[in-house]
Amino acid sequence: MLKEAIFHSPKSNYAYAYNEKTLHIRLRTKKQDVASVDLIHGDPYKWDGGSWNYETKPMKKIASTELFDYWFTSLEPDFRRLRYGFHLTGDETIVYTEKGFYPEIITHDTADYFCFPYLNSEDVFAPPAWVRDTVWYQIFPERFANGNKANDPEGALPWGSAEPTPTNFFGGDFEGVIEHIDHLVELGITGIYFTPIFKATTNHKYDTIDYMEIDPQFGDKETFKRLVQVCHENGIKVMLDAVFNHSGFYFPQFQDVLEKGEQSKYKDWFYIWDYPVQTEPMPNYDTFAFTHMMPKLNTAHPAVREYLLEVGRYWIREFDIDGWRLDVANEVGHDFWREFRKEVKAIKPDVYILGEIWHQSMAWLQGDQFDAVMNYPYSHAAIQYFAKEEISTRDFMYKTAEALMMYPENATEVAFNLLGSHDTPRILTVCKDNKEKLKQLFTFLLSSPGTPCIYYGDEIGMNGEQDPGCRKCMEWDTTKQDRELFDFIATLIRLRKEIPAFGNHGTFQFISDENDKHVMYTKTFENETLLFAFNNSAEVVTVPIPFDLKGRKVTHLLTG
Amino acid sequence: MLKEAIFHSPKSNYAYAYNEKTLHIRLRTKKQDVASVDLIHGDPYKWDGGSWNYETKPMKKIASTELFDYWFTSLEPDFRRLRYGFHLTGDETIVYTEKGFYPEIITHDTADYFCFPYLNSEDVFAPPAWVRDTVWYQIFPERFANGNKANDPEGALPWGSAEPTPTNFFGGDFEGVIEHIDHLVELGITGIYFTPIFKATTNHKYDTIDYMEIDPQFGDKETFKRLVQVCHENGIKVMLDAVFNHSGFYFPQFQDVLEKGEQSKYKDWFYIWDYPVQTEPMPNYDTFAFTHMMPKLNTAHPAVREYLLEVGRYWIREFDIDGWRLDVANEVGHDFWREFRKEVKAIKPDVYILGEIWHQSMAWLQGDQFDAVMNYPYSHAAIQYFAKEEISTRDFMYKTAEALMMYPENATEVAFNLLGSHDTPRILTVCKDNKEKLKQLFTFLLSSPGTPCIYYGDEIGMNGEQDPGCRKCMEWDTTKQDRELFDFIATLIRLRKEIPAFGNHGTFQFISDENDKHVMYTKTFENETLLFAFNNSAEVVTVPIPFDLKGRKVTHLLTG
Repeated sequence: MLKEAIFHSPKSNYAYAYNEKTLHIRLRTKKQDVASVDLIHGDPYKWDGGSWNYETKPMKKIASTELFDYWFTSLEPDFRRLRYGFHLTGDETIVYTEKGFYPEIITHDTADYFCFPYLNSEDVFAPPAWVRDTVWYQIFPERFANGNKANDPEGALPWGSAEPTPTNFFGGDFEGVIEHIDHLVELGITGIYFTPIFKATTNHKYDTIDYMEIDPQFGDKETFKRLVQVCHENGIKVMLDAVFNHSGFYFPQFQDVLEKGEQSKYKDWFYIWDYPVQTEPMPNYDTFAFTHMMPKLNTAHPAVREYLLEVGRYWIREFDIDGWRLDVANEVGHDFWREFRKEVKAIKPDVYILGEIWHQSMAWLQGDQFDAVMNYPYSHAAIQYFAKEEISTRDFMYKTAEALMMYPENATEVAFNLLGSHDTPRILTVCKDNKEKLKQLFTFLLSSPGTPCIYYGDEIGMNGEQDPGCRKCMEWDTTKQDRELFDFIATLIRLRKEIPAFGNHGTFQFISDENDKHVMYTKTFENETLLFAFNNSAEVVTVPIPFDLKGRKVTHLLTG
Repeated sequence: MLKEAIFHSPKSNYAYAYNEKTLHIRLRTKKQDVASVDLIHGDPYKWDGGSWNYETKPMKKIASTELFDYWFTSLEPDFRRLRYGFHLTGDETIVYTEKGFYPEIITHDTADYFCFPYLNSEDVFAPPAWVRDTVWYQIFPERFANGNKANDPEGALPWGSAEPTPTNFFGGDFEGVIEHIDHLVELGITGIYFTPIFKATTNHKYDTIDYMEIDPQFGDKETFKRLVQVCHENGIKVMLDAVFNHSGFYFPQFQDVLEKGEQSKYKDWFYIWDYPVQTEPMPNYDTFAFTHMMPKLNTAHPAVREYLLEVGRYWIREFDIDGWRLDVANEVGHDFWREFRKEVKAIKPDVYILGEIWHQSMAWLQGDQFDAVMNYPYSHAAIQYFAKEEISTRDFMYKTAEALMMYPENATEVAFNLLGSHDTPRILTVCKDNKEKLKQLFTFLLSSPGTPCIYYGDEIGMNGEQDPGCRKCMEWDTTKQDRELFDFIATLIRLRKEIPAFGNHGTFQFISDENDKHVMYTKTFENETLLFAFNNSAEVVTVPIPFDLKGRKVTHLLTG
């Protein structure tokens, strides 16, 4: 048995409270090296005549990657505390503990075992319940719909009359969203993620000037209130984008520093290296990337903190929004996010907090900071497999399994899964305009654990390269919309809502062979099992259904 | 190269901010499998014509355990952010990233590399500076010295007239400590850890009745104020013991619940399962272990929280104490400890927060909760090796290395290292009264990274079995004290203070061979290297000093 491959870590994605009663325990071993694993477990204080009163429970192999197998079990300790270890059987039998390996189970002492000291309910990672069943839709407000020409920015072009550029405007606004709410209801989405709506100069509004004001090109606060109300009436949650890592260049507090230098009362709102403040040839202050237009905010400073926390509270308190998506979230301090969570959840306990992080994010997903992160690693493998055909079925399965093992299950259930956004080429373009591949990707996305997000226009077959190409005006001429695609995606969303196994309530399991050209997985909930089968080759493939179907009811979900 | 053994994890003991400028990066590989490792690193936003502008830096092998080698480097990223990976050379050359292995360094994209997004100073694990150079002394107040017979509890026995039992009293008190402050000053210790002093019924006082009152057998608040003052005047910090996981049975709030049941306004201060509340045959409420005398406190309840936080604040604010040692710290919620840290540090920013945890404690040592934990794993190996002769030199080195790699270096520097306490047999007894072994252990403890603690009386050769045996009255008859041992330990403490390399400022490195009967390590600080050599066998061993000493000044530290 390869001891070097065996891994477990307490209080991590390997050992966590799934809810107030249940602990999840995972173990990693070398691939195909271990025949069975039993969890050795018991209450640390339960002894019988000098011997620890333990039990064992078989673990199940739930995932495999290129190098490793992953084992899992869940349990509900009577007294909410646990000592545990692992009994592994393969070419030998060993016991794995926090302090190393033993030839057999130790019962005279529990000090060497792993420890889950106490399941305190206030520490349980507990995202809002509604998120688990939400299907998101991302709107880039400048480009979704122009409902009110009166508030168009100067020089705005007629809708769809030109290709998008980094600087042009088409006048998209809140009234446009309200006007087209039926489109969203028909599609079936239940949450909208809006990229920034606060006062700013650019068309993307990531350069905030005033976090407490709506950009006038989108409408005013009354319109926004109406928008939230219309969404709520239609069963749609509303999430806004908070750019707290940096302000825009024209943020008055930063302008004050530029003007008054060391005399500015806002000088400590930013990280100024020396004076006078300069923007060229290199800014002498911390920025996002090296962009002098995006001065990094000092979120450790009490006044900045209070200002941004009030932003977080204000839009929930006054406008009843349901979520905050946090831009460049991992460059802001953990300490700020902990306070942010306390403050916003105090106003609305089931508000959703979503961090934009592209890397491994366990440090933010322990219950004290975010409810979820934008789960790029998850869909990346699917895009490589279905759209780009860069990786084999084998690698797709391994990478997907790796992404599923990366976080606790309660975090994975609300992970924000996306095929594209305003920051990436449109998924149809990534698929080289092959609609079948797009359909495969959406089927995978919408049947995956996590909460899926559809980027505006992807549902009607819009295409576009990397920004600015992916930010075209939404096509509202239904004769130019791909309605067949729209119906297909609407059907997937409906199935996800109607069938628990389809979406977040089903257990995901690959069942393909490593060498297949196709890929199959099942989703299971209680007595119901769904089989998903994808042919990722150009040829017709005949594959036997790997179940004994005798006496069972079988339904083709798409055709009935 | 064994890929299964290669391990790194972002934001952990493998990648952390050492201070406001410096990142530490560690990597684990299979033992003796990798010849060299280079860290591939760069700013994520620094590019040259489509290619990432990275650098490489050699990593140093700093520790080995039975299965693994550990590699280390530190660096100060210009812009406080880092993308990084590892270039490993052995029987093949591979690049290790967050997303897996590559045959060579990727430069067209940094998405797959590991990420340290931003070194925000407020997130840096920053224990109080004074702790690093502190030598602790643990006092069990009932048994240290009786300075005032007037406050003796009823039935108190004459000092040292009987063996300690779980229930007898000898009248130790604060005036006794004040009277004997010279003993502590002569020994050279610079911090006292007092086991509980609050109102309670037992001799150990872990059964708190009132967290806001001193137990009258120890003195009153005035005496305690004087004690802290005397300690401070003598350069000695004072740490108290906080038992926040559970109250004592006679805590009035719990008594109220016992009496009034569901009508008690304190019913949610505890975890009561059902009513009426019963203590027999099994308590129907959460307890520490299964002890009905120790009802677990509900630290998620706002009133309990406020009560305990005020305890935390009160003794600092009013009595100027310097540290809190937190009993059964890992069974209390993380959320409570985060608030506790904020509250007590707001009053005294350099107060020391020490958690009693016997297991792997990384989840509490990330800067938001504790400054340190009681580092049992570290000294355990030394006790097994020197005192019990249960493990080989090889295993001692491996286990010690493992303990040193378990936490970030800034956490290890203030880890609370102990050879024994009121909860374990006395170390001389563990050494089977072999004083030479005891001296070896103290030499190891006092030259180790971390802050050492001496249990009262160990310095004068007191012995005693597991509690209550280890809680004898301190021996004040100097003719019965082992003064030679006292002088030896005082010398070690003096060397630790005078020579930076001796204590927490030196870099620790084993230099022994696995098959040796003796063990040697060096401590290095700047130009100075100390060699520590221990013979752990009954025979005389002759070992060449493994350095070229030509032209170098050599001093024997103990004999001059």
